[in-house]
Amino acid sequence: MRITALAGGIGGARFVRGLLRHLETVPVAPGAEPHRVTVIGNTADDVTMHGLRVCPDLDTLMYTLGGGVHEGQGWGRVDETFSVAAELKELGSEPSWFTLGDKDFATHIVRTRMLNHGYPLSRVTAALAERWKLPELGVELLPMTDDPVETHVVVGPPDDHPDDGPRAVHFQEWWVRMHAAVPARKILAVGIDKAEPAPGVLAAIRDADVVLLPPSNPVVSIGMVLAVPGVREAMRGTRAPVVGVSPIIGGSPVRGMADACLTAIGVETSAPAVAGLYADFLRGWLVAPEDDPRTTPARYAAGLSVRAVPLLMSDVDATAEIARQALELAESLR
Amino acid sequence: MRITALAGGIGGARFVRGLLRHLETVPVAPGAEPHRVTVIGNTADDVTMHGLRVCPDLDTLMYTLGGGVHEGQGWGRVDETFSVAAELKELGSEPSWFTLGDKDFATHIVRTRMLNHGYPLSRVTAALAERWKLPELGVELLPMTDDPVETHVVVGPPDDHPDDGPRAVHFQEWWVRMHAAVPARKILAVGIDKAEPAPGVLAAIRDADVVLLPPSNPVVSIGMVLAVPGVREAMRGTRAPVVGVSPIIGGSPVRGMADACLTAIGVETSAPAVAGLYADFLRGWLVAPEDDPRTTPARYAAGLSVRAVPLLMSDVDATAEIARQALELAESLR
Repeated sequence: MRITALAGGIGGARFVRGLLRHLETVPVAPGAEPHRVTVIGNTADDVTMHGLRVCPDLDTLMYTLGGGVHEGQGWGRVDETFSVAAELKELGSEPSWFTLGDKDFATHIVRTRMLNHGYPLSRVTAALAERWKLPELGVELLPMTDDPVETHVVVGPPDDHPDDGPRAVHFQEWWVRMHAAVPARKILAVGIDKAEPAPGVLAAIRDADVVLLPPSNPVVSIGMVLAVPGVREAMRGTRAPVVGVSPIIGGSPVRGMADACLTAIGVETSAPAVAGLYADFLRGWLVAPEDDPRTTPARYAAGLSVRAVPLLMSDVDATAEIARQALELAESLR
Repeated sequence: MRITALAGGIGGARFVRGLLRHLETVPVAPGAEPHRVTVIGNTADDVTMHGLRVCPDLDTLMYTLGGGVHEGQGWGRVDETFSVAAELKELGSEPSWFTLGDKDFATHIVRTRMLNHGYPLSRVTAALAERWKLPELGVELLPMTDDPVETHVVVGPPDDHPDDGPRAVHFQEWWVRMHAAVPARKILAVGIDKAEPAPGVLAAIRDADVVLLPPSNPVVSIGMVLAVPGVREAMRGTRAPVVGVSPIIGGSPVRGMADACLTAIGVETSAPAVAGLYADFLRGWLVAPEDDPRTTPARYAAGLSVRAVPLLMSDVDATAEIARQALELAESLR
């Protein structure tokens, strides 16, 4: 089976890990190729810190699938040390609010070295993915684009300077330093209009047997992948059923601060509203029992197949079961 | 007193640290400015590793004078960790024979970031020196030049490929990976003919009260500083007495592998021969008792004032005494 998933960071990574666990139990038909999973990762929250290029979502995907992630926080490396960051602080190198671990720094050093030598991000990502043995897992990790795209967030003036005008900050500054607590007036994807899908992205959507949307942030993760020119058209055009997993349970994000992002684009924080963002291509939608259209007033689009199942990715096995349900729903739509 | 020293790494750093200790005991004349020491550091063994610019001699000077050096090895940071290097190895990022510690990486990350933003090395070095409070110690650290210069070493073919021709390797590869055990056929300073002295270098030599040559490597450290166009002329032209400390005791380098470098340029490993490299400007020469011209057959140039004193920099106080002797010798030549 050829499965393609669009993904952000933690939610996407955990979902794909569960998907891989489930696929271990799905027999490959005689003569067929082994299961393959292509993950198209969001790169719009990439950022240059201390002169090094950091790709938080791609790294979270690699670390999680490769077994190196800090399980508790969902990102960064397990058994991490922080000597470099401590010394950067001594040197006064900003920003100090974005802490990178020592092992993590090695990733960014290698990535930056390769980018500076002219390799596109997709080649760099393939090289890094080898360290995590993703090819052996049947996983291909693609950045959504090789072109630089950065999400900027327009926020109002700080409380102590009410006369200042609105200003744009990098997504990471809003997300990590401000904890998305300052309302976003606008979310901008700088550079996206000129971005091209990375090699393999459109083909992976077009040629898949199933396309999945993990419960990633619908605005700053999946929304950015879809905003790369050509990707949305490919989603509309693929013959594969597109099935998504709602990142919203009841009126709240499962984790993260998707509600702050949805509010910024004027969309309600609800499972039906998020499905509405994907209305032009989405065929199946997994929601939590709280959002079951048979027992709640939640209203979904007429043609959408909605299935209610427990959606908490509490461990890998629970996540594998969610992935199984998503594939089963996709199969029913074929 | 204004003192200018040309310096390489470990030997130069330890000597200057002893000099500072000694200067604490030298009263400043009423109305005079505090003692100032300008160190002109060798940058020809700088190297780009993992895409980061490493300046081994400047770093050894900063770490030693600032109290952060690993005392036992003479370079690198005390209480260092090696997480980044371990992960770089996992990523297959070469070279693995040049190990950098985590704190050390922070220095190189900040340096590279500033260089990439267009700051010249002298400005970068001044910024890094502030972290080590060198200005408060009365020390100004200058790179010999802001221009890239790299020492390359021409070596013969490896034993298992005797038919290969000679090849050039970076100085660090010869020094660190090959332990200077492969004979150097030639030592090249790539880029030096077009290098300009960094701002302040010529003035520091011209306006000093005393110019000192610590017991640094006469070929790849002091020799490179002198090879920057204009520096040697400034050494000849300064009215300050120039006094050096021999890096050779008997027929051997005090430490390091200076003999391998001297052999490469066809110069004997002896205190008189090294003095001969500086013959056009050197006025005073501190040698070990083993090289005392009054008791040994060692032959020095006619006009050179040679003084024999114990030269082992076994601790800071012993080194301070050597520095005191050097200044006393300089005073006698005024």
